[in-house]
Amino acid sequence: MATNQLVIGLVGFGVVGEGLYRVLNQTPSLSARIKKIAIRDPAKRRNAPAALFTTDVNELLNDRDINVIVEVIDDTEAAYQIVSTALKNGKQVVSASKKMLALHLPELLELQQTTGASLLYEAAACASIPVIRNLEEYYDNDLLQGLRGIVNGSTNYILTRIKEDGLDFREALLGAQQLGFAESDPRLDVEGWDALYKWILLLAHGYGLVLKPEELLLHGITHLHPGDTAFAAARDQEIKLVAFARKLENQQVAAFVLPQLVEKNDPLSLVKNEYNGVVLESQFADRQFFSGKGAGSFPTASAVLSDLAALRYGYRYEYKKLNGPVPHRLNNDLLLRVYISCNDLRSLPREQLEWIDEWHAGEQRQYLVGAIRLTVLLRESWWKDPGVSLVLLPDPVVEDAGVRELKKRSLELAGVF
Amino acid sequence: MATNQLVIGLVGFGVVGEGLYRVLNQTPSLSARIKKIAIRDPAKRRNAPAALFTTDVNELLNDRDINVIVEVIDDTEAAYQIVSTALKNGKQVVSASKKMLALHLPELLELQQTTGASLLYEAAACASIPVIRNLEEYYDNDLLQGLRGIVNGSTNYILTRIKEDGLDFREALLGAQQLGFAESDPRLDVEGWDALYKWILLLAHGYGLVLKPEELLLHGITHLHPGDTAFAAARDQEIKLVAFARKLENQQVAAFVLPQLVEKNDPLSLVKNEYNGVVLESQFADRQFFSGKGAGSFPTASAVLSDLAALRYGYRYEYKKLNGPVPHRLNNDLLLRVYISCNDLRSLPREQLEWIDEWHAGEQRQYLVGAIRLTVLLRESWWKDPGVSLVLLPDPVVEDAGVRELKKRSLELAGVF
Repeated sequence: MATNQLVIGLVGFGVVGEGLYRVLNQTPSLSARIKKIAIRDPAKRRNAPAALFTTDVNELLNDRDINVIVEVIDDTEAAYQIVSTALKNGKQVVSASKKMLALHLPELLELQQTTGASLLYEAAACASIPVIRNLEEYYDNDLLQGLRGIVNGSTNYILTRIKEDGLDFREALLGAQQLGFAESDPRLDVEGWDALYKWILLLAHGYGLVLKPEELLLHGITHLHPGDTAFAAARDQEIKLVAFARKLENQQVAAFVLPQLVEKNDPLSLVKNEYNGVVLESQFADRQFFSGKGAGSFPTASAVLSDLAALRYGYRYEYKKLNGPVPHRLNNDLLLRVYISCNDLRSLPREQLEWIDEWHAGEQRQYLVGAIRLTVLLRESWWKDPGVSLVLLPDPVVEDAGVRELKKRSLELAGVF
Repeated sequence: MATNQLVIGLVGFGVVGEGLYRVLNQTPSLSARIKKIAIRDPAKRRNAPAALFTTDVNELLNDRDINVIVEVIDDTEAAYQIVSTALKNGKQVVSASKKMLALHLPELLELQQTTGASLLYEAAACASIPVIRNLEEYYDNDLLQGLRGIVNGSTNYILTRIKEDGLDFREALLGAQQLGFAESDPRLDVEGWDALYKWILLLAHGYGLVLKPEELLLHGITHLHPGDTAFAAARDQEIKLVAFARKLENQQVAAFVLPQLVEKNDPLSLVKNEYNGVVLESQFADRQFFSGKGAGSFPTASAVLSDLAALRYGYRYEYKKLNGPVPHRLNNDLLLRVYISCNDLRSLPREQLEWIDEWHAGEQRQYLVGAIRLTVLLRESWWKDPGVSLVLLPDPVVEDAGVRELKKRSLELAGVF
């Protein structure tokens, strides 16, 4: 069995980079060694021999000895320059930069193709859960009916605290920041961007979709109201930030990232605090559920390590779905089942709703349950106002069969509201 | 990307074989076709064209057109003959026969080596959960600290019903048989053999251990008493049939299959009814949890299908741990924390216990909690008597540090019992 000796150029020595350094030192069996570490700030104290460090990343990129670049920095554009140069220089690359990977996916696909070099990034999505590898290797035929995930640990921590401790969003966010489960600038997490970038990566491997962020409907958790939590609790459900994909007819796929009501018996309701979880539904095998830590120094380093181990055996992503006979495509022309709450239902443009099944005006909050076209949500912004919250229902995509029946009910309700 | 056209010789047309036939017909993208199906009984009605069938398996094994043999029959020795002949004839093989694979693992490892042919068997362990593939691909370095699983759906269904419906073992078994979750001859399941065979396969991929069934401590669930269920409930735990492995010092591994008390916050307690679940603990990535259906026509066929998809790309198991620099070995020289119940504690050979932490004599049942050497359990049979039940505690292996403290406590209790 041919294995390659790995000589690593490590770019970045933050929590993940240092975690990896420590993990590698404790895993001699991998026979990988870090030759050089590129950092930005030479003045910072580092827990590693000074001779390892350089501030010139080109020292790594041009070193013929180094056959793997591991990129774990925060700067998206710098990361892209480094990763693309490394591939062009014939080096294998492991990256954990989800935003960079998601935004530059088309170019990186092409670079993998033209250079023949391997680019692995298991750490970029759900860290310790080997979800990309499983989509690549195990669900590589046409059977993936659905893919749903809790892919951002910060928001899940916040939502768990809201539910279990009865906090409101601000209080829960503050607690998460104090415990290090949310960044001091939390927008990337709480507005859903981090989840969206990861979802773009998983959709590429699960369905062969190569999407731009603006093509996917996205909403974070910042506008959730205590009334929404109460509504969920009354139905014995809870609100999670769910990254969603479902295969429709004719190789079409529904996909979005939105707060969603989750049933108690849904495995996603078992994903608590900073954990991540993914449910894979296949045509014949019912469903599988994977969970594990989705972030943090060691879980991320551990995913990088598994990519390194795979590189020793010449592993590379095949993107089999991307090269399949009939490519999948995103379909945004869908009807979604939604719950919408605000202080005054009359302020909503109700003509934009396809129908309304239920509405309620209480002292604390007013809400309705109905259906709206996804294209309307993509076009309009009223539902993103701070005073409005929109949460999907558990089975959010209206399939054709359901439409007729619901439309009938809608007509009956039309006179009331 | 080179792909191989698969021409399949299917051996067996029971629930799995027919499931696979139907799944393949609905998955044209795989471009695999079944050329011939070998069956034993030509008189049985089959839901497939008669021309596909033969009662002579050699027709498949000697057909040069056929490059993959899929073996899904019940007869262990016949299965071994078919699989080994197929490998010798240069054919790739997919098998779902856990017992055959576990009993003949050494020979099959050698045959894979000498013939260069690929033998895949994801369906043989946990069916729809891709656990072998993950152990092979993702946890292929030295970091797997622990592996625990509920790998038999029948016993888990029975244990779930015992707990949730307050049934005793006989009632729950009968219900499971009526619903098709247990065989009419349930011994293979309820005595733990099915779990043991699967565990032998997973230990080969997780730790590179090639074990004989008699080397592993095994006990089923047939002797569980309602008093045991009550004991578990009082501690807010439940009894599961747990296949257990933990890495110890110096590349040694503890491994066994026994009923075990599981804490409420253990992911294994989330595995209900006929589902399977596996917890993988890695040195740095905390723990991952996988769950899904572990048996049944379509989940098993779906795992076979994923193996077929992998064969198209020339995939084969590398058994990396088996070929590692320092091989792991099974260590049975361990102290285990146990709960033992019976009708009269005085009937137990208490000198065989290392120590006793707690004992209780009630009207319904008497029990003790203590520690016993695994080698004693392997040697003795009193604890397997129908009137005795033995269940491991949640953290069953006593590590050195704990021993001294507990020994002290033991001395204090010695006078009492």
